[in-house]
Amino acid sequence: MWTDEEIQSRIQRAVEWLREQALLAGAQGLLVGVSGGVDSAVVAGLCKRAFPEHSLAVIMPAQSNPRDREDALLVAKTHGLRTAEVELDEAHRLIMTQVEASLTGTGLEARGLRISQGNLKARLRMSTLYAVANALNYLVVGTDNAPESYTGYFTKYGDGGVDILPISSLTKSEVRVWARALGLPDEICARTPTAGLWAGQTDEKEMGLTYDELDRYLLGGEVKAEVRERIEALHRASEHKRRLPPGLELPRLERLV
Amino acid sequence: MWTDEEIQSRIQRAVEWLREQALLAGAQGLLVGVSGGVDSAVVAGLCKRAFPEHSLAVIMPAQSNPRDREDALLVAKTHGLRTAEVELDEAHRLIMTQVEASLTGTGLEARGLRISQGNLKARLRMSTLYAVANALNYLVVGTDNAPESYTGYFTKYGDGGVDILPISSLTKSEVRVWARALGLPDEICARTPTAGLWAGQTDEKEMGLTYDELDRYLLGGEVKAEVRERIEALHRASEHKRRLPPGLELPRLERLV
Repeated sequence: MWTDEEIQSRIQRAVEWLREQALLAGAQGLLVGVSGGVDSAVVAGLCKRAFPEHSLAVIMPAQSNPRDREDALLVAKTHGLRTAEVELDEAHRLIMTQVEASLTGTGLEARGLRISQGNLKARLRMSTLYAVANALNYLVVGTDNAPESYTGYFTKYGDGGVDILPISSLTKSEVRVWARALGLPDEICARTPTAGLWAGQTDEKEMGLTYDELDRYLLGGEVKAEVRERIEALHRASEHKRRLPPGLELPRLERLV
Repeated sequence: MWTDEEIQSRIQRAVEWLREQALLAGAQGLLVGVSGGVDSAVVAGLCKRAFPEHSLAVIMPAQSNPRDREDALLVAKTHGLRTAEVELDEAHRLIMTQVEASLTGTGLEARGLRISQGNLKARLRMSTLYAVANALNYLVVGTDNAPESYTGYFTKYGDGGVDILPISSLTKSEVRVWARALGLPDEICARTPTAGLWAGQTDEKEMGLTYDELDRYLLGGEVKAEVRERIEALHRASEHKRRLPPGLELPRLERLV
């Protein structure tokens, strides 16, 4: 088992890294979107330790799930973090209604509307985090962990659209250990992980994998063949999310200028 | 000077590259946000040639500039492209009003509100393009050209948030040559370039550089020392937009599982 000192020293390293990254970027502080889940709860704690006076928890609760808002406020209170709240349901509805109507007009078949709706939520949250961050000259800190990053379980330019990633090499179990070390209450540490893109969504159900399996695989441990294959299939299919958009390289036409 | 055959052969290469990229991604077609400007007008023409039945021009006009909508419709008509229209002014207002109010609540100093508002427009456009693309299983095709890419004159996760970049190695003057070769009318080819983030914005005024200077520099030609320094300063400051978000690498704590 790990020792408390090991964990505290790793947390300290993450806090210092956050400070370095902000300094390099010429940023004044850090913000994070806090959902009530354990990943953002941990990142929120790191931000507060790195910039006690210049850190902010941005809460973007869905009206359909009041529990999320309460948990997010509890996270902010635990860390003593400032909060900013923005409600995105109405903007989401406005855009999605027009998208659906305009697609009907084209006569093209729109089979991916559920995924479209879900991802739009993640992208509106990213857009909002940057609207706040740009106004304050803060960095947007990401909350993706190692299993999410490896399997591509994040929305491209949504929760994947951030400036820096402090916990992207951590297993889910280590995130939970950090959560306890940062003084977060049990109800946050033990929450069922969800991306919050639609009602009833849970990460494990959607991925078809448990975090225990994912953590074990990432640590080089034994997993069933079908688990390994599922993880590797998700990894390959999400390659495009972990690299820059490819550009066509044409030799320059020198005589144009 | 270049020959018509050279230009047509380069255009053909871009069209084939777009088809290959869609095939690799398992996508059914391509879409592009058409602003009325020359870059998106060219990309729209490439998309139509690559996927005659599965290409779409998404038009997201600002109410404040009806000329943009007319030009965008003219571009779509020239290429014979299907269109989808989404109005984002109201969603932008809804989010920005809440962002400003919530910032006032924090007591933090919000000095970057203009840049915040402008970038939010670009990010809402990206979010909308993906809402349409996800529904259709299309790729989002980017319109950034070589000067924009080199100087970082694009919004991170806004117009920079795309799947593929067919004209990112082209000078602005070559983009204009392609526009004529693709049959676009003079009023599109000769438009003053603008990112469309606020009224009266023009690219050259904001960058403090002309496209002629940028093209010459990118082609290895002679430019004034101050021009070179300005371009290199913009390039350095925008490095973070041309790479993936950095992640903290911690060795895995093996004993956690």
